[in-house]
Parts: sequence; C-alpha cells; structure tokens
Amino acid sequence: MADFRVVNVRHLISTAGEIDFVDLSEAVRSAVDNSGITNGLVHVFAPHATGILLLTENDGPLLKDIEELITQLVPKKKTYNHPSNAHAHLRSILFPPDKTLPIVDGSVEFGTWQSLLFVETDVYPRKRTILIQVVGT
Amino acid sequence: MADFRVVNVRHLISTAGEIDFVDLSEAVRSAVDNSGITNGLVHVFAPHATGILLLTENDGPLLKDIEELITQLVPKKKTYNHPSNAHAHLRSILFPPDKTLPIVDGSVEFGTWQSLLFVETDVYPRKRTILIQVVGT
Amino acid sequence: MADFRVVNVRHLISTAGEIDFVDLSEAVRSAVDNSGITNGLVHVFAPHATGILLLTENDGPLLKDIEELITQLVPKKKTYNHPSNAHAHLRSILFPPDKTLPIVDGSVEFGTWQSLLFVETDVYPRKRTILIQVVGT
Repeated sequence: MADFRVVNVRHLISTAGEIDFVDLSEAVRSAVDNSGITNGLVHVFAPHATGILLLTENDGPLLKDIEELITQLVPKKKTYNHPSNAHAHLRSILFPPDKTLPIVDGSVEFGTWQSLLFVETDVYPRKRTILIQVVGT
Repeated sequence: MADFRVVNVRHLISTAGEIDFVDLSEAVRSAVDNSGITNGLVHVFAPHATGILLLTENDGPLLKDIEELITQLVPKKKTYNHPSNAHAHLRSILFPPDKTLPIVDGSVEFGTWQSLLFVETDVYPRKRTILIQVVGT
Repeated sequence: MADFRVVNVRHLISTAGEIDFVDLSEAVRSAVDNSGITNGLVHVFAPHATGILLLTENDGPLLKDIEELITQLVPKKKTYNHPSNAHAHLRSILFPPDKTLPIVDGSVEFGTWQSLLFVETDVYPRKRTILIQVVGT
C-alpha cells in the first residue's frame, strides 16, 4: 500500500490587467518537487470567474495570436446584459481556469512546447490566487 | 499515512430543454460534506454527449449573455452532416461537461463569483445524471 | 483504509496529419481494466501543444461537423504572428488535450454516446504519446 498524500499550495500572483499572461510552469514544478509526490496528478485551479488557464507554447508572437483569438471569439465592444465586465466572464467560460497534469516518476509531464499560463481577463490589475494541488504517492 | 477514500454520488436532475441552466453548487458541496473528505478534489462529470458544465457567476443577465455566446459560436440554424442535434453535440465539445475543483480544509474552493452550472444543450427536456466523485483524505 | 494506487500507461499512436481523429476509448478502458483499480478516476493527457482531446459521439457525419467547427473558429488561412502552425496551437488551446473520467465499480463512466477522441491539429503526420493515468482503489 502506497503512502498517499494531498499537498495544497496557494500561489499568489499580480496581473497587469486585461489579457496579461503569467507563466505558472515553474510554480507548478516547485510545488510538485516540494510535495515529495512522484506519481500522481497536479491540479491547478484559479478560483476566479474572470481568469483563464492555458497550456501552450510561451512564445511572444503566439501570445499575440492568442490575444487576438480571445478578442475575436468574445469581443469586448459588444452590448451585453451583465454590466461592466461580461466579456471577461465569457472569456473565462470559453477558456476555463481548470487544468490537470500527470506526474510520472517525479516529473510533471509538460510536453516540450507546453507551458501553463494564467491569463487575466478582468479589466484592471488584480491580485490572483492560484491553487496548486498535488495528489499521489 | 492518510486515510484515502473515493466517494461517488449520482445526482439526478431534470432539465427544461435547450439551454436550460441547473445550478449544481449545493449538490457538490453536500457530496463533499457527506463524504467526510477534507483535502483532495471533487470531479464533476456529466456522462452525456449533449451537456455542458460551466464555472461562472449565476447571474440572470450573465446567463443570457452565455446563451448568446453559445448560440453565436455554434448556431442551431446551419446545415450540419449529423442529423437532428449536431449543434447540441458541438456545443458540448466546445464547452465540455468535465470539471475538477480542489477541496482544502473541508471546503470546495469555489471562487466568490463561481457557481457550477449544468447547461442542457439537447433540444428537449431530459433526465440527466451528474457524477460527483470525491477523492482524498 | 483502502489500497490506493497510481498506474501510468503511455499509449502511442500515429496520426495521419491535420484533423485526423483517433479513438482512444478502448485504450482507456484497457488501462483501467489492467490497473485493477475499480473506483477512482482516469486522467487522459496529451503532452503536445498541437493536439486535442474530445468527448463525443464517434459518428462519421458528426466528425465532419467537428472538423468544420474547428476550422471555422480557428481558420488556417489567416495571418498569424507565430510562424508556420499558429492555427494548430490555437486549436489545441480552444479544445485542450486534458480530460478526466470517473471510474465507478470497475467501469469508466463514458456516457452512451461518448467516445474519447484525439484530434491531430498539426500539419503533418505525427507520432503521439497519450498519457493515461489511473488513480484510485
């Protein structure tokens, strides 16, 4: 019988406002390393209705493309029913802030070109909490 | 070594037909409370190819905006290859019925403005089963 | 106290190039059967920045509709900043390669019309690794 554990880490970040990208990959790797868990999963969650988590290549030109995709699929300049930041909520629904990654033999199984990014969708700079939960043996 | 458990709850709901919203937040909190698990994760899953799970603010005007977003990204009135309810399937692919939430110190870590909603995408009222699985210590 | 385990399976597939569908349902069921785990979850993950995992009905006409939806929401013929395969990355962001399914009493809880499909979004045939992680008792 394996020694199972749950380790919760609250990782605090500051964002610069609408469509700011913050790379969480190192924070996730550190949380897993510090947990002592070598096989299991790491669940990353932003308890915010106006935030996004993405797995993608952290490459400047691609981040510009991502911003254009988000902006085009959920435009800011449109009449919405919810006041003030409806577009920020809708972007967080289309690109939800909930990702799970496997941990195998001590490593988080990011693909070669995968980084985990938080994207701020709210309209002003925010303090954000990212919950990193490591579960396994 | 912690006392690990898996607790499965089948939560049954009835929907009123296309783009009906059902709030599952209390059902998820109850399942977690009743499980006795205080640290771990709760995975919520709708085993239905025409259903959606969303984390968002349960606010009437915003739900109207969500309906418009779903309808605009995947229109009903369009020619599809799959007969009768292709748009319902496509909506469930774009907004999938699979969410994981962390449980920390006895509480499900919903953000202040986050509720968990099931959205019916099929074209008539349905009975739906929501699987709530609690895993942890 | 239950006997908890984590079982990791690397499932290798070959894809035929852009928007090729590969059904993973049997591989997932086999990994779960072979793990001996009867209650818990199976997390399926493609560590690739240009891949998609979908839960949907594996029906030829519907797959054609899915291809059209992906192509329409993220067009290939558009000017992007990232060179060569930006559209492949953006498709993997909008439809991410990360799915979790519950296992209850020995069965993976696929809905009647749900299959798990990998969709290649890169522009040429690839060898792909699918990580299937089974966690539970």
